Amino acid sequence: MEFSEYFPLWDQLTPKQQETLSASLVSHTVQKGAVLHGGGMDCTGLLLVRSGQLRAFILSKEGREVTLYRLFDRDLCLFSASCLLRSIQFDVTVTAEKDTSLWIIPADVYKQIMEQSAAAANYTNEIMASRFSEVMWLVEQVMWNSMDRRVAAFLLEEAAIENAGLLHITHEAIANHLGTHREVVTRMLRYFQNEGMVKLSRGAVELTDRAKLEALRDI
Amino acid sequence: MEFSEYFPLWDQLTPKQQETLSASLVSHTVQKGAVLHGGGMDCTGLLLVRSGQLRAFILSKEGREVTLYRLFDRDLCLFSASCLLRSIQFDVTVTAEKDTSLWIIPADVYKQIMEQSAAAANYTNEIMASRFSEVMWLVEQVMWNSMDRRVAAFLLEEAAIENAGLLHITHEAIANHLGTHREVVTRMLRYFQNEGMVKLSRGAVELTDRAKLEALRDI
Repeated sequence: MEFSEYFPLWDQLTPKQQETLSASLVSHTVQKGAVLHGGGMDCTGLLLVRSGQLRAFILSKEGREVTLYRLFDRDLCLFSASCLLRSIQFDVTVTAEKDTSLWIIPADVYKQIMEQSAAAANYTNEIMASRFSEVMWLVEQVMWNSMDRRVAAFLLEEAAIENAGLLHITHEAIANHLGTHREVVTRMLRYFQNEGMVKLSRGAVELTDRAKLEALRDI
Repeated sequence: MEFSEYFPLWDQLTPKQQETLSASLVSHTVQKGAVLHGGGMDCTGLLLVRSGQLRAFILSKEGREVTLYRLFDRDLCLFSASCLLRSIQFDVTVTAEKDTSLWIIPADVYKQIMEQSAAAANYTNEIMASRFSEVMWLVEQVMWNSMDRRVAAFLLEEAAIENAGLLHITHEAIANHLGTHREVVTRMLRYFQNEGMVKLSRGAVELTDRAKLEALRDI
């Protein structure tokens, strides 16, 4: 499969733009756990996922994390290229949650296309609005929802992503997704286990009553 | 002062676009407290502030509020025109915090210009990135900062906006900005008063030791 089939804008670019873009692309394969962007890195470029799964999160000074959004096949990450827009005044870290194959589009090449093409600029607008909506969902979760509902929502989302009821995930990792402490997650999961909603084992959480978890999430 | 002087894109539009835009503009003056967008309203249009102050916030099902950002002279509000981009999947409420004079740009007119003009689309991108950065600041505040630091930061921001050390604001209003309960704010302000940082009176908070408030905010 070619880049042109993954990049919805392709057909709207001029032959010259297509040529410049093709020549500048970097194809990359990274293993689960790899850090693709973050910390000191300046402007990595836009990441277009061919296959795999990325996670974008923010880090506190003390090293706490909270997940902003995930990127799957065909998703484009803008915020690894914050130099694209001078108004992007925040840093995200992007890591691979699974072995991932992707293209890196240099920010200056993309920026030039965006300045020439209304279609490219509007496409970028839609991507940003979509990430914005995900972050607003997070804000609403954090502001209005108690931690039990957030843990239930997270487990159900994970099960949907993995298409499996048995999740291989540590309490620490769940805490890092939700921006809380491991102890809080452990206490919550034990409560869920007592209520029959999950079954805990070393490094794994099994969802044993999804309907009850959904009811908790949707209260 | 004319719209063209407030709208940075004006000179980059074609005469035809300028004409369409001028003909569709609605000039509006609202009083402090007026609701400009929210709830059932569909797609109010983009709001360009001539003078005054708007507040954009989200509302929980239970009626709790949290401020996302403020808009001042020359600021443009996109999210009162969420039909502009199909990926905007959240609702904000926009109210006037002061008597405000503004223009409403119909969403369909703006959208058409954005589709024709890369400059307009890129300008919109910058505005969205800028609001995104403000919301990310909020996420970081909520995730990593304790409520005492958030109240201190809010009081200092208000004092900067009002250019005054005496703020005419209720504990309820502060709670609505920060997404918490009035009781929490009252307790915090009493603690601040005991520490000599503020002086409380009916409907007002006076900042009496800004350096100490800044130190608390910047820990």
